[in-house]
Amino acid sequence: MIVPAVSAAPTEAELDALWEACCGENWGRWGAEDELGTLNHLSAEHRRRAAALVRDGVTISLAHDLGVDPTPECPFPAHHHMLAAGDSRENTGIPGYEASRDYVGTQVHGLGITHVDALCHMFVRGEMYNGRPASDVRSDGARSNTIMAFADGVVGRGVLLDMVAANGGAPLADAAVITRAELEAAERALGVEAGAGDILCIATGRDTRRAAAGGALNPAQGMAGVHPDCIPFFAEREIAVLGSDGISDPMPGLGITNWIFPVHQIGIAGLGLPLIDNLHLGRLAAGCSAVGRYEFLFTLGTLRIVGGTGCPANPIAAL
Amino acid sequence: MIVPAVSAAPTEAELDALWEACCGENWGRWGAEDELGTLNHLSAEHRRRAAALVRDGVTISLAHDLGVDPTPECPFPAHHHMLAAGDSRENTGIPGYEASRDYVGTQVHGLGITHVDALCHMFVRGEMYNGRPASDVRSDGARSNTIMAFADGVVGRGVLLDMVAANGGAPLADAAVITRAELEAAERALGVEAGAGDILCIATGRDTRRAAAGGALNPAQGMAGVHPDCIPFFAEREIAVLGSDGISDPMPGLGITNWIFPVHQIGIAGLGLPLIDNLHLGRLAAGCSAVGRYEFLFTLGTLRIVGGTGCPANPIAAL
Amino acid sequence: MIVPAVSAAPTEAELDALWEACCGENWGRWGAEDELGTLNHLSAEHRRRAAALVRDGVTISLAHDLGVDPTPECPFPAHHHMLAAGDSRENTGIPGYEASRDYVGTQVHGLGITHVDALCHMFVRGEMYNGRPASDVRSDGARSNTIMAFADGVVGRGVLLDMVAANGGAPLADAAVITRAELEAAERALGVEAGAGDILCIATGRDTRRAAAGGALNPAQGMAGVHPDCIPFFAEREIAVLGSDGISDPMPGLGITNWIFPVHQIGIAGLGLPLIDNLHLGRLAAGCSAVGRYEFLFTLGTLRIVGGTGCPANPIAAL
Amino acid sequence: MIVPAVSAAPTEAELDALWEACCGENWGRWGAEDELGTLNHLSAEHRRRAAALVRDGVTISLAHDLGVDPTPECPFPAHHHMLAAGDSRENTGIPGYEASRDYVGTQVHGLGITHVDALCHMFVRGEMYNGRPASDVRSDGARSNTIMAFADGVVGRGVLLDMVAANGGAPLADAAVITRAELEAAERALGVEAGAGDILCIATGRDTRRAAAGGALNPAQGMAGVHPDCIPFFAEREIAVLGSDGISDPMPGLGITNWIFPVHQIGIAGLGLPLIDNLHLGRLAAGCSAVGRYEFLFTLGTLRIVGGTGCPANPIAAL
Repeated sequence: MIVPAVSAAPTEAELDALWEACCGENWGRWGAEDELGTLNHLSAEHRRRAAALVRDGVTISLAHDLGVDPTPECPFPAHHHMLAAGDSRENTGIPGYEASRDYVGTQVHGLGITHVDALCHMFVRGEMYNGRPASDVRSDGARSNTIMAFADGVVGRGVLLDMVAANGGAPLADAAVITRAELEAAERALGVEAGAGDILCIATGRDTRRAAAGGALNPAQGMAGVHPDCIPFFAEREIAVLGSDGISDPMPGLGITNWIFPVHQIGIAGLGLPLIDNLHLGRLAAGCSAVGRYEFLFTLGTLRIVGGTGCPANPIAAL
Repeated sequence: MIVPAVSAAPTEAELDALWEACCGENWGRWGAEDELGTLNHLSAEHRRRAAALVRDGVTISLAHDLGVDPTPECPFPAHHHMLAAGDSRENTGIPGYEASRDYVGTQVHGLGITHVDALCHMFVRGEMYNGRPASDVRSDGARSNTIMAFADGVVGRGVLLDMVAANGGAPLADAAVITRAELEAAERALGVEAGAGDILCIATGRDTRRAAAGGALNPAQGMAGVHPDCIPFFAEREIAVLGSDGISDPMPGLGITNWIFPVHQIGIAGLGLPLIDNLHLGRLAAGCSAVGRYEFLFTLGTLRIVGGTGCPANPIAAL
Repeated sequence: MIVPAVSAAPTEAELDALWEACCGENWGRWGAEDELGTLNHLSAEHRRRAAALVRDGVTISLAHDLGVDPTPECPFPAHHHMLAAGDSRENTGIPGYEASRDYVGTQVHGLGITHVDALCHMFVRGEMYNGRPASDVRSDGARSNTIMAFADGVVGRGVLLDMVAANGGAPLADAAVITRAELEAAERALGVEAGAGDILCIATGRDTRRAAAGGALNPAQGMAGVHPDCIPFFAEREIAVLGSDGISDPMPGLGITNWIFPVHQIGIAGLGLPLIDNLHLGRLAAGCSAVGRYEFLFTLGTLRIVGGTGCPANPIAAL
Repeated sequence: MIVPAVSAAPTEAELDALWEACCGENWGRWGAEDELGTLNHLSAEHRRRAAALVRDGVTISLAHDLGVDPTPECPFPAHHHMLAAGDSRENTGIPGYEASRDYVGTQVHGLGITHVDALCHMFVRGEMYNGRPASDVRSDGARSNTIMAFADGVVGRGVLLDMVAANGGAPLADAAVITRAELEAAERALGVEAGAGDILCIATGRDTRRAAAGGALNPAQGMAGVHPDCIPFFAEREIAVLGSDGISDPMPGLGITNWIFPVHQIGIAGLGLPLIDNLHLGRLAAGCSAVGRYEFLFTLGTLRIVGGTGCPANPIAAL
């Protein structure tokens, strides 16, 4: 798939054209009923080969703890409420039965929770992936492009482009914008190439930066992400899923009118590219560095939320 | 590990002895600080071999949709609340940014939601796995044996003992109690043997029965599960995780005083054996039958709930 | 205000005409911006006179406990989750500061929770009170006719029409339909007359029936309420708020096409009449009977939920 | 009731003595089973006289809107989730029935939500009002001193001590500490005297300060409240309920070891004095000033939360 290249300082018209091109390529590409989008790139054969990447048998979580205290990164944290703790373990009254129970709830999206964006999460001018109308997403749940499309999971080859390692070890600056050329340079530096059906994870060093900042970052001060000229890269390479330790889009970004978060807007709604936001990639980067390989088996079971626009997640990498 | 056998009609004293034996074997076995329990049986080598089981590259979800309407099986269903649907997609006021968002919450345990039981879910006489006191499970979250112990996921060999297929195709009766001998017969019939580090899934045909009943079952009328004489089997075989399309324990069970759910009580608290309750195994059974193999790569990323007693889950099998 | 009378066996056309008449009278009656509806009938003078009804100085709750366990009447019960119980009373770490905390949440409507219906709760053919469109009620909250319109509370004369006492003491039958003639007869029997600005509470003996049924009723078996011929009565009398120990509308009702719950549909959307559903009126009935007065000071502070379609409530009667 | 006076710069020992004296007076005063605490001071006669205060027939809400966006004052805001908005008004499938529905939930306590503190909210050295142990407050709900004790509502004479008006119109400074002498001076200035059974509301101008600050305050910068020498005043005057536009206790307060919030600690747990935190008193102050009376009918229906430590509330003043 060839879509128009994007210049270094893209105009609104340029992203309009990119949007049109992406829709033109992928809407209808896998049929009018398709809800998988670029996950169609991930074939059974890709999965089989990905499984063969498990050599050390080590697994690494790619998620953050579900935060329950508000922070600038996560102003609407999750709720974890005990329903019966040790003090009430006998409250069912069944002799000998002693149990604890709890409740967990969370907003799915945002800048803190590790989560998957379903294809109904984003609209452009009232339309979502495959030409479906915004009115399909109703107040009692979405009718199409929901997280249920991914219910059989995402199991495939994961590729980590650790921009920190590729750039000599320093976390990217606040608000850094990563270009396609930099992604390609990172591929060469790390000895890996992202290709068809891959789950591409881009590390910007956000977790290292947070730790250095004493445990809390403020997204208002910027968050690293990719330049919109990477969107043609994702399309051409036939990436299945894109993840980042940020939200893929940089903040505050390039200031292009109507295209504040082009990877979300054009990626999700145009290409049908599911995103995973707020991955924890620090542990994975250490693991990949240790074994000298930046590819791994990526596994993810999305919660089966009927009508859902995404889900909280803990993807697991197996090296 | 050898623990006492359990007779066909076990007495309270017999299960007391089994409890003591299981604690005696596994409490402290992996150190006083251990919170993994029988997941220690799942080694890196097991994981590597499990990955090699992916031959067809097909993935199958082992979870139910998160129910949001109350049923006898799930009287406390999940909440899925839209925060912004298509009608409010522009409510952030950022030009061009159109998004939908939602909230999901759920009680973790019960008879309906597919979920993992962490080792702090069950107590016997005020104690949980590895001798920790019930007072570690506090109203503001558990302090030990939480779901965080499994944060790096459960990736290993899954084995399906499909008792329906093994028994000629009919779902098990309401309240059926599966004995160790029947599990062993099923292994022979299906050509698979559960062993060290395996995630053992036992299918009783619950989903088929539900469909036959018009979509709803009532657990008060019984639910198939395993006889407590299977607990020594799980221990001896060094099973890492036990799952079922029920809750492993049969309902109403054998009526043994103080031991209403012995697999939960002795398995979780004594052996340190994590359970996965309410799996959907019908699709997997069809898949295994089609390829004639009852082993597969099992993958599960447990949500990182600090202080949590378990988590909702969608384990993915890769054949 | 005069609206068409309704026959004993009303037709769809008759209720269509009633709907048109009610809208014709009350939409615009208090201005195009009005969101108070019939609460406009409750004047400062009415409030002053209502306060003078407090003679014994006794207060009585008109609400049910917020149920937290599902029942046929309340399949979606409230959540009451402790956040810190006695075991975690010191969890802020502030020396000497020992506190417990909790969370409460609930669906607002339904057949179990005592709640107020705001004027945005009901639509007829896409319109709500005062001609506002359904599109004003958005997935991120309602824009008009919300519970905020009543934020300064409902304080006025309450009148209890205890149909049980008026009819000799027996709770009304399942699915009983109370006619206007019966309401008027009850007024005479109880020596009270509902008038302008009143909060009219109609008791059908639901709580007595529930107690007699062992604590649980099933609305599928019917619930007593008023015949649509009472709607002109409410309009002519200029009732400000209507409450009931049921939902005012009987279940299953009269089976009129498109008008399953005419009091909700025509009362709320046509007249702008706020309803209070699922009141507990048994204690009040006993209190009124004891003092021989069926009027009292009614007080209610509605929760200030911006964008809300109603609120859970505990109205207090002072005799 | 006479309790020890408190000096201008109280020591820990002095507050220990005050605590002992308050417990000595009020624990057991109304019987070992009592859960009403100082609400016992509010008699039927007080209620009758309070009703006579309604002269203008005007009602005023004393609550804030339930915040749903996090702020420094309210980091854990409420959840208001639509379940069916206008777009889904027909989702029950019943012809002609068009309705919207929603969900509301909130943490009960904190510095932002207008709420009542039940007597089980605070402990001193593991004990709460009337000598009950902290272990009565369990992870599945409190067993004593719950908000249910107030289920029949709080209807009585409200007295507003508007410290702003009494002090010439300027909101109190951040972290201002109001002494007993200042309360008594305010009584004289405003021509009102708080007495037995009253609901005493103390206004510090917090809402004015918030508005002046552009809509948001930060409690970390201080919040006005009363000096602990007011505790004997509340006790001697036999105040039934104490409310404030802050939390009654000043922040950061006087820095007395183990007594960070003495009004909460000694008031709630010692005297059995229910508090209402975060009242909105600006509208009431304007209303009282306009009519030249600082007394009114106070009405409050507490939500019937079984096992609850308090409730969100919208108290209504009728002048």
